[in-house]
Amino acid sequence: MKHKKIRSMYFVRIDNGEKIMESLRNFLEKENIRCGFFTGIGAISHCTTKFYSQEKKEYIESNFHGEYEITSLTGNISTLDGKPFIHAHIAFFDSDMKSFGGHLDEAVVGATCEIFLKDAESEIKRKMDKGLRLNLMDL
Amino acid sequence: MKHKKIRSMYFVRIDNGEKIMESLRNFLEKENIRCGFFTGIGAISHCTTKFYSQEKKEYIESNFHGEYEITSLTGNISTLDGKPFIHAHIAFFDSDMKSFGGHLDEAVVGATCEIFLKDAESEIKRKMDKGLRLNLMDL
Amino acid sequence: MKHKKIRSMYFVRIDNGEKIMESLRNFLEKENIRCGFFTGIGAISHCTTKFYSQEKKEYIESNFHGEYEITSLTGNISTLDGKPFIHAHIAFFDSDMKSFGGHLDEAVVGATCEIFLKDAESEIKRKMDKGLRLNLMDL
Repeated sequence: MKHKKIRSMYFVRIDNGEKIMESLRNFLEKENIRCGFFTGIGAISHCTTKFYSQEKKEYIESNFHGEYEITSLTGNISTLDGKPFIHAHIAFFDSDMKSFGGHLDEAVVGATCEIFLKDAESEIKRKMDKGLRLNLMDL
Repeated sequence: MKHKKIRSMYFVRIDNGEKIMESLRNFLEKENIRCGFFTGIGAISHCTTKFYSQEKKEYIESNFHGEYEITSLTGNISTLDGKPFIHAHIAFFDSDMKSFGGHLDEAVVGATCEIFLKDAESEIKRKMDKGLRLNLMDL
Repeated sequence: MKHKKIRSMYFVRIDNGEKIMESLRNFLEKENIRCGFFTGIGAISHCTTKFYSQEKKEYIESNFHGEYEITSLTGNISTLDGKPFIHAHIAFFDSDMKSFGGHLDEAVVGATCEIFLKDAESEIKRKMDKGLRLNLMDL
């Protein structure tokens, strides 16, 4: 993983075989980014998405292995228990134009993943909502 | 719906059961935002999309009810007849990885919807294009 | 194609029948934009996507003709051999809610395409990675 900082913006390249969420988390900690948003494109070889069922109040996990193009990776950065927290959703396609997507748990980059990230240079904390059993942005 | 303003950026949280477009419209009016862009993620329980047929010069409406994850909500803000106007498209998935999407008419949030919005602190007006029968950005 | 510049941000409108990539390339050259990111929505009538197979180290081309709504157009701007270079991925839907997407080679606008583009006012160069046979961001 490499990045270039331009004022409060970052261009991030996550490389073949690297994990997107793990790489981003390490990067956010090193750069001390606590609030922001990002969009990304690229390709992945493995992905775990989670679908949050409101009815069951739990995540349903799906696992994917193959060659996929990311059509959209969209996320925000806040903090949970004092540490940078990433909330990201992803949509991706295989070569047969079948699409997949949801809440991104983790994905392994195939070829390259390019992310534009804006550091809002502030902090938004997350707090557990007991009714939803989700960590919501505490605005 | 809650928000935090950081300089010209907004982090917006639309809550369970609230309407995305209606909430955003009220928010834009209160904050006097007349030009900008936004991206969002989250979940929805109801959605109405419209597909604009160029051939027929009309919108085809589709309605969805269930549990869906938003993989991308992308939109811009301009003005129409002096009021803030939102143009947004949405893509969403159900738990069977079936995807849906199009021009967003309205959606009801399930659990939470998190939007990053940049106020461009300017104004772009929309004007009816008689040939297309669409309100285009008057640039 | 028309645009409005607001400080380092651009709102771009690509018109019915115009090519998205060709229009953007001309625009970037004229405005001398060498680094940035963009998101867009709108509709298209033709599209060529490319799926990069890591295994085969080549792109598989797909062509589409019809009426489609763009749910997400996400891209970044860097330079290759001294000229502005666009890397964009697109997701789009037909009226039957069938979705398509991938690396955007070219698309023809149907009705309108609206793009928000942020000029990072810097430069990121691309360099051929011989192993991947891809022009990666040189960060």
